[in-house]
Amino acid sequence: MAVYTHLPADTLERLIDVYDVGKLRSAKGIAEGVSNSNWLIETDRGRFILTMYERRIELDDLPYFLGLLDHLSERACPVPRTIHDRDGAAFRMVGDKAVALIEFLPGVSIDTPTATQAYNVGAALAQMHLAALDFPLRRANGLDIATSQGILASCGNTALSGIDPALPSMVDIAARLQARWPDDLPRSTCHTDLFPDNVLMLGEQVSGMIDFYFACEDTMAYDLAVTHAAWSFGAGGHEFNSEIGSALVNGYQSLRALDAHERQCLPVLAQGACMRFIASRAEDWIDTPDTALVNRKDPMDFARRLQFYTDHGADVFGVGSDG
Amino acid sequence: MAVYTHLPADTLERLIDVYDVGKLRSAKGIAEGVSNSNWLIETDRGRFILTMYERRIELDDLPYFLGLLDHLSERACPVPRTIHDRDGAAFRMVGDKAVALIEFLPGVSIDTPTATQAYNVGAALAQMHLAALDFPLRRANGLDIATSQGILASCGNTALSGIDPALPSMVDIAARLQARWPDDLPRSTCHTDLFPDNVLMLGEQVSGMIDFYFACEDTMAYDLAVTHAAWSFGAGGHEFNSEIGSALVNGYQSLRALDAHERQCLPVLAQGACMRFIASRAEDWIDTPDTALVNRKDPMDFARRLQFYTDHGADVFGVGSDG
Repeated sequence: MAVYTHLPADTLERLIDVYDVGKLRSAKGIAEGVSNSNWLIETDRGRFILTMYERRIELDDLPYFLGLLDHLSERACPVPRTIHDRDGAAFRMVGDKAVALIEFLPGVSIDTPTATQAYNVGAALAQMHLAALDFPLRRANGLDIATSQGILASCGNTALSGIDPALPSMVDIAARLQARWPDDLPRSTCHTDLFPDNVLMLGEQVSGMIDFYFACEDTMAYDLAVTHAAWSFGAGGHEFNSEIGSALVNGYQSLRALDAHERQCLPVLAQGACMRFIASRAEDWIDTPDTALVNRKDPMDFARRLQFYTDHGADVFGVGSDG
Repeated sequence: MAVYTHLPADTLERLIDVYDVGKLRSAKGIAEGVSNSNWLIETDRGRFILTMYERRIELDDLPYFLGLLDHLSERACPVPRTIHDRDGAAFRMVGDKAVALIEFLPGVSIDTPTATQAYNVGAALAQMHLAALDFPLRRANGLDIATSQGILASCGNTALSGIDPALPSMVDIAARLQARWPDDLPRSTCHTDLFPDNVLMLGEQVSGMIDFYFACEDTMAYDLAVTHAAWSFGAGGHEFNSEIGSALVNGYQSLRALDAHERQCLPVLAQGACMRFIASRAEDWIDTPDTALVNRKDPMDFARRLQFYTDHGADVFGVGSDG
């Protein structure tokens, strides 16, 4: 939540001139993104988001992320299109950092969705999965169940206990989930991080899905499970809202019906989704000094959701209890 | 440079509905302000800046700051007007914090101005001083020369030396400046913090002067001296740019000629301006742990400018060397 790099006005003006978007009128650093700096840009022709990628490691993935936005927006998905420069390039270098200009989409992120909003989020996710079936680029999930287990194991039991005494058991739980993990479900390009703050809404409609920087090829039902886990609980993962959860799944199925095997797997996929966020949050928690002015996300939030899906997943998704 | 408070979308929508500005379409937290949170708001009728005042102490001053914006914008100064709510109020409470909605102004902040830009900044400052002469509210300068000396003295020599061995002498220098401080110069409402990042420009024109939260009644020539010290030096206060300095003063005088006594006092006023920033930056430096993820501003930047004005102020402002 910061702007890490200062871009002087003349640098910005020269940069915007490289795109066919009109003349720079305003540039405000916005408090979004954790490894990127972002500016809301206004020209005499419209508004745009300028992103500077602060970590070099993402550079190789940029053609995938930016190409995916183009692919999906061409297929009428509510995602921002990439603005290409006058030479057709999707990103450019400013010094040693890559920058990209993308379309600004209106809408606000909803903390507490209505059932109709959740239904529309589910439908937008299905629309994305279907539209991405013929996306030609591939990227592996860098936070799959095996990686999550590895992250938790390398955190170490002492450090995990320091966050919460319940956390060391996650290493074993991840191993058991991995053993039951389905590897034959239908796949597409998945968002894998479709939290409420990555969805923009205008009234009841989804006006934008943003922040595709965890997008990868994975099983579509897993992406639905991630979204279910991200949207269906109150603050801290304490309270499951069955109306929201059902609306998400129903909205998804309004465009893409789950087959019996996918549905059967939802409970274990939802547990795996929780495990992925427990792992990354535990790692961040341990790596971030508690004096830092950064909001660490409590991994116990998703440990509670994991427990919920373990106890009630079969009921929630209406499948047999071996799910 | 942060957004300190999370405002859920439904809270924002209800808040925006209280103003006659149309329906909320977008809200982006922007990385501006150090004691405020700010959002760039878009409705179907325009764009606005929503400010939340995070420190309670400013509450008593809000009618002054927001009334000043109205007073100046009514007189065609390039400052954002305050948007009043449907009941006519300039600010409202959200929980225990005050919020205000102000006009969004286009433009970008210029790090390295041209002489024409500097001339126009000087003129905009003079226009503001003249327009504010009949502003009925009063606020004292909370960082005048006596206060600056007090801040430096209470930092203590050990702590000041820890920043730079040259700093403890500032306590005495402030005392000497205070003894020479003119108290009979023409006064008005002053910005007292018109750094380049508080000025928005569209091409060569000043499209906005913003961030009036240090505004107060003071001598107009002091405000010009602050602006001169803020704009006329390269990074770190190392290099004086006489062309920019002259353009600022000439632009100012194009609308309001300085009298002989004001001009004579400019060297000591410029030294006092530097002292004010040395004091507040030294205090911040000592109060901010060096592990904090905050950019501390080096007080030595303005100690170098102070030395420059001490040595060359009479030449720079074209006055006798007793100035």
